[in-house]
Amino acid sequence: MRYGVLGTGEVGRALAGRLVELGHEVTLGSRTADNPVAREWATAAASRARAGTFAEAAEAGELVINAVSGQVALDALRAAGAAHLDGKVLVDVCNPLSFEGGLPRLDPVESDSMGERIQRAFPGARVVKALNTVDFRVMTDPGRVPGEHHLFVCGESTAAKEQTRALLGDFGWPAARVLDLGGIGAARALEMYLPLWLQLARALGHEDFNIEVRQAG
Amino acid sequence: MRYGVLGTGEVGRALAGRLVELGHEVTLGSRTADNPVAREWATAAASRARAGTFAEAAEAGELVINAVSGQVALDALRAAGAAHLDGKVLVDVCNPLSFEGGLPRLDPVESDSMGERIQRAFPGARVVKALNTVDFRVMTDPGRVPGEHHLFVCGESTAAKEQTRALLGDFGWPAARVLDLGGIGAARALEMYLPLWLQLARALGHEDFNIEVRQAG
Repeated sequence: MRYGVLGTGEVGRALAGRLVELGHEVTLGSRTADNPVAREWATAAASRARAGTFAEAAEAGELVINAVSGQVALDALRAAGAAHLDGKVLVDVCNPLSFEGGLPRLDPVESDSMGERIQRAFPGARVVKALNTVDFRVMTDPGRVPGEHHLFVCGESTAAKEQTRALLGDFGWPAARVLDLGGIGAARALEMYLPLWLQLARALGHEDFNIEVRQAG
Repeated sequence: MRYGVLGTGEVGRALAGRLVELGHEVTLGSRTADNPVAREWATAAASRARAGTFAEAAEAGELVINAVSGQVALDALRAAGAAHLDGKVLVDVCNPLSFEGGLPRLDPVESDSMGERIQRAFPGARVVKALNTVDFRVMTDPGRVPGEHHLFVCGESTAAKEQTRALLGDFGWPAARVLDLGGIGAARALEMYLPLWLQLARALGHEDFNIEVRQAG
């Protein structure tokens, strides 16, 4: 399958790299065509890996992953172009995080979310919020953390969520460990989990953790 | 030990009831001295149970539990009286939740929290945020949910957190399953977990669940 991954940070490179290892064709998109990080990544990876602009990555991908930070996600997706996203599954991994005086801040928060903003701004895309609740190393290697810990998806399209589950399955997440929280409005809850994730990372002293939802019955 | 429990809702009655069962003396406090729910509770419970005003409950308790809703917590604590809270451990269970058009809303959120507001308003109290991340039935009966699932505490006083851990231990939570997230500022993260809790309750169809933090190593 052909994937477009937007964002050349740790998250984008981790996801794109694993997808290439899995045999997929991946275009890693960045703001400019000559991004040295993206070029180096494409050179080091297999021939299935390409570097390009956001627009080139979105155009090339049958499924597009938004792996830029929440602060610049809408700009990146506008650069990618609505026409290159129409009808496609758009997996949104971003968190609307910034730091102010050492304290994490979220914007938007509570009355809106990046997942919803992206869906509103690109009504032709089938947005699925996923993967924003774990460290980038855990995203593609859930076995780093013991136990039957969970991921979450939400979005308006059931078919898009199923395609996302298949992608997560490729990454090593069995379907039973991917909980569907309903429509894209649940992205608020997933993004508002980030402060607890940050507190846990600080308390545990590392990022190799995740939560397992335990329930009666 | 003598406990003051503020709030006659499900949470307050569950906590107060369990504390009485455990042999403690408990005053269940409400806005008025003649609250019929509190009186009925005190009549039905053992002789160690009393009903009273917020002020009477706070005065009677060596440890005070705030189990009213976030929307009225500061009013209830003002009625309880700073003098009755000074120097005491004040376990804050509340979530700043309201519903607008069926959607959960939090106020304060992200740049502040009820835990912090209460600590600021009552600097003489030793506030510990705890128990706000599980259903009231799970609070005093963690065995309802299988697995080594976790609670969280935060607050400025290490001694107060240790006293709270002892209380949680009485409720059936081993110390290793109570994660200390640091100062009271972490109450933001604990309160912002609520939307995910609500989404999970909806997705699972019940409230008998909790999260277990799984980590490498």
